[in-house]
Amino acid sequence: MTPNPITGEVLLRERTPSSQADLIREMQAIGQRARKAAAMLALASAEAKTSALRATAAAVQANASAILAANARDLAEADGEDLAPALRDRLALDPKRLEAVAAGLEAIAALPDPVGRSLARWMRPNGLDIERVSVPLGVIGIIYESRPNVTADAGGLALKSGNAAILRGGSESFYSSRALVTALAEGLRTASLPQAAIQLVPTRDRAAVGLMLGMNEYIDVIVPRGGRSLIERVQRESRIPVIAHLEGICHTYVDGAADPKKARAVVLNAKMRRVSICGATETLLVDRNIATTLMPQILADLRTAGCELRGDAAVRTIDPAVLPAAEEDWRTEYLDAILSVAIVDGVEGAIGHINHWGSHHTDAIITEDEAAAERFLREVDSAIVLVNASTQFADGGEFGMGAEIGISTQRLPPRGPVGAEQLTTYKYLVRGNGQVRP
Amino acid sequence: MTPNPITGEVLLRERTPSSQADLIREMQAIGQRARKAAAMLALASAEAKTSALRATAAAVQANASAILAANARDLAEADGEDLAPALRDRLALDPKRLEAVAAGLEAIAALPDPVGRSLARWMRPNGLDIERVSVPLGVIGIIYESRPNVTADAGGLALKSGNAAILRGGSESFYSSRALVTALAEGLRTASLPQAAIQLVPTRDRAAVGLMLGMNEYIDVIVPRGGRSLIERVQRESRIPVIAHLEGICHTYVDGAADPKKARAVVLNAKMRRVSICGATETLLVDRNIATTLMPQILADLRTAGCELRGDAAVRTIDPAVLPAAEEDWRTEYLDAILSVAIVDGVEGAIGHINHWGSHHTDAIITEDEAAAERFLREVDSAIVLVNASTQFADGGEFGMGAEIGISTQRLPPRGPVGAEQLTTYKYLVRGNGQVRP
Repeated sequence: MTPNPITGEVLLRERTPSSQADLIREMQAIGQRARKAAAMLALASAEAKTSALRATAAAVQANASAILAANARDLAEADGEDLAPALRDRLALDPKRLEAVAAGLEAIAALPDPVGRSLARWMRPNGLDIERVSVPLGVIGIIYESRPNVTADAGGLALKSGNAAILRGGSESFYSSRALVTALAEGLRTASLPQAAIQLVPTRDRAAVGLMLGMNEYIDVIVPRGGRSLIERVQRESRIPVIAHLEGICHTYVDGAADPKKARAVVLNAKMRRVSICGATETLLVDRNIATTLMPQILADLRTAGCELRGDAAVRTIDPAVLPAAEEDWRTEYLDAILSVAIVDGVEGAIGHINHWGSHHTDAIITEDEAAAERFLREVDSAIVLVNASTQFADGGEFGMGAEIGISTQRLPPRGPVGAEQLTTYKYLVRGNGQVRP
Repeated sequence: MTPNPITGEVLLRERTPSSQADLIREMQAIGQRARKAAAMLALASAEAKTSALRATAAAVQANASAILAANARDLAEADGEDLAPALRDRLALDPKRLEAVAAGLEAIAALPDPVGRSLARWMRPNGLDIERVSVPLGVIGIIYESRPNVTADAGGLALKSGNAAILRGGSESFYSSRALVTALAEGLRTASLPQAAIQLVPTRDRAAVGLMLGMNEYIDVIVPRGGRSLIERVQRESRIPVIAHLEGICHTYVDGAADPKKARAVVLNAKMRRVSICGATETLLVDRNIATTLMPQILADLRTAGCELRGDAAVRTIDPAVLPAAEEDWRTEYLDAILSVAIVDGVEGAIGHINHWGSHHTDAIITEDEAAAERFLREVDSAIVLVNASTQFADGGEFGMGAEIGISTQRLPPRGPVGAEQLTTYKYLVRGNGQVRP
């Protein structure tokens, strides 16, 4: 039996189920424990949840060396598996990243309690007093890929919102996630909350994911976080409602009335600050009125920063060094130092392009013309629409949510950044004095 | 070609597609028209939508005889098909029911506009101004069974909330629904809104339902309204998010501190006012402290009203005329004049029974003990929890929503009664002045 890196806790030892039947039994037991824990967590006080989160942050710091040792073990196993450098970088923890994990937990602790808020209240003519109040969702199943910090963020957000969580991290980050879940368990114990509120699936067997997607008796919502193939698999197979986080084909439109200095700074940041996040701009739209004046400066900035440019015919007439864009480019999330560029006819042309080719995630306009800005805000059909700001602000932390579990691209709520508040639902409390329906 | 009963409109003539390929083309065309109409409707003013709804109500009244003639045709065809009396009653319209349809449309018209509300707004330290505003969902596909009034309610709610609707009514109510959709088309035309905003699938071919469930390019949300088998089929097959409206296994708990008069009136109403609606009480829970005092009076009232009683051993010890309840009874939605009855130990016992056996729909406590009432409100995990009122108030109209498209039993929003406000989602508007992300 592998002792747990921090506490030697038996609950979290890695399992290697000897049969499918074993695995099913194991997953059912996890589900039952989660359901019970969720009922208790839903009634927990704001103070208990806050103190559990603070104690978890402290445990992450106090056990930093054990967590880093667990991470080193993951990295050592990954060395044998020829992991891509980008994936290896996502997997790696260091003292600074652990500091950030602890700070993230502190930030979640400091948020207002999202449960028990009165969202609306009204009185009916017959005297019935109707109130809509926020309540937890129940049990959330979170399926994610390599980044171990998701373990702490997702676990912390679930706890804050009074939900139990079943975490299924990437198999590459198994030991790191286990060490972080142990810190969460310590936090829960400190606050006398049930440890089963946050459980890590204790096996790397990929069949566990398929089983989770069918556990509609025990899991209320599934949140997949990872690449497109993971999310599509989950959407296809899940018998449980999914909060999906699909691709971000984000646009920045530079209007004829843009301030040139703002436009240059914002476009460069929106594309190049980090090219691999869902809020990175993938298509630049330029108003025909400034195509020969401001556009060349913007393209030069991008080139200097190492960005490949692919443009439509109009762009290439002005700048023949731009590569030709194919139709496919307008619907591609590069997640790389590549940008497609099109010239459009004003704000109307930009809105038409975005609503047709975009993924309804995050889009921005750069303009000093207030009417154009308000029209763009109103007519662009995306979860996040910005004026004079970088699309890279599409992030729960940047929105002030402490952390996020992802950016939902579905239309039904929750849409956009999913923080603790978005992991709640509501119920109606109706207070009467003997009313019967006529 | 069958002329339309009101206007002779060609758009709505019944189609009998000659092949599957024909039907697919037809449904695709409906989807494309709906998508375009949704984009226009999302930007329509509150005034335009209100005037369309008022004009629809007027058209329903002005064309009452044509609508009743269409309904007579449905009923005549149903005569050949040996419809159950309850279904026939649901299908039938009369002048009074048409009055109610028009009044429902007027009530929806009078509601505040649910689109464009500022739901939250805050400023970030970097000066970003973040606002969450309500927006329509897009295109809603509504699949329902025989009741033709759903055509008007669902169409009216979709219009109010700025959504386009594709309606697929029961084949038994085809002519009635067509006549009502024609009234809606007249309302839309009066307000210069696109008629394609509300389309009825113009064929009774059942394959159309399957096609709708796969049209994720054109339909954003599916709302099934009908029996369990319809809803389960939709949940299983749909590639589009579903707002489901499953069974209501509703409880009324009579606490030891109940006012006897209120308890008797409320229980009788909760069970017997209408036994076939989802908010009808199916299980009565009685506090052990009043099992020999108040319970016999309540059971006598129910018996007098023609209700069959099935009880647990404790109930049958007190009243041997009560039939024995099997385990299955605690999870059965009778939708009939049958009630299961159990004795529980106080509010804690009632909460335990409800959370274990119920369907998280609607549950009530009858008590004068405020602490017991507040505990019940907090701990019962249902969409609607009532104190001293009949579970039959589980209805959008009774909640003041004008009308409802159903009671959602899912946990993610929308939960509970789904009116116009619940058919919206939100987006974030972010206003900056050149911010870039560090």
